Amino acid sequence: MPTIVVEVMPKAELLDPQGKAVAGALARLGNNDITGVRVGKRFELTTAGPVDDATLEAVRGIAVDLLSNSVIEDVIGVSVDGEPVAL
Amino acid sequence: MPTIVVEVMPKAELLDPQGKAVAGALARLGNNDITGVRVGKRFELTTAGPVDDATLEAVRGIAVDLLSNSVIEDVIGVSVDGEPVAL
Repeated sequence: MPTIVVEVMPKAELLDPQGKAVAGALARLGNNDITGVRVGKRFELTTAGPVDDATLEAVRGIAVDLLSNSVIEDVIGVSVDGEPVAL
Repeated sequence: MPTIVVEVMPKAELLDPQGKAVAGALARLGNNDITGVRVGKRFELTTAGPVDDATLEAVRGIAVDLLSNSVIEDVIGVSVDGEPVAL
């Protein structure tokens, strides 16, 4: 069964409080190599059949409409079995 | 500045309620291509300097100890500027 991966990250120009919290925790734990952290989401979608153009078109719509909040997040990548596809 | 990406997913053998909810929403919206959804996390770590072996070793530790809950999640990938590195 093919696996489609959709990656969603907070928009670069917005503050990411969750990432800030992780970065703060790292600094408190003594790690000074990491200067910034941003936390996004990774969705794995499984399809029953092969992935054709219609499926990809549907996934692009799902990624923008359902899996991400376009006010604060960007869909930064969609890939099928590890191969990136155009957004 | 190099970007290190850490990908964390719920363990395959565990139920992922968030993914189940997304899959249910997709089915209700009329999409029947997607049969399963799992939701994980994607961390982008920014470093000030170049990424050397010591940095990678630190990141591996961070990924397992701080960025994931090893009871329910697996670190499935670490990459530096798009190049996968060994876990």
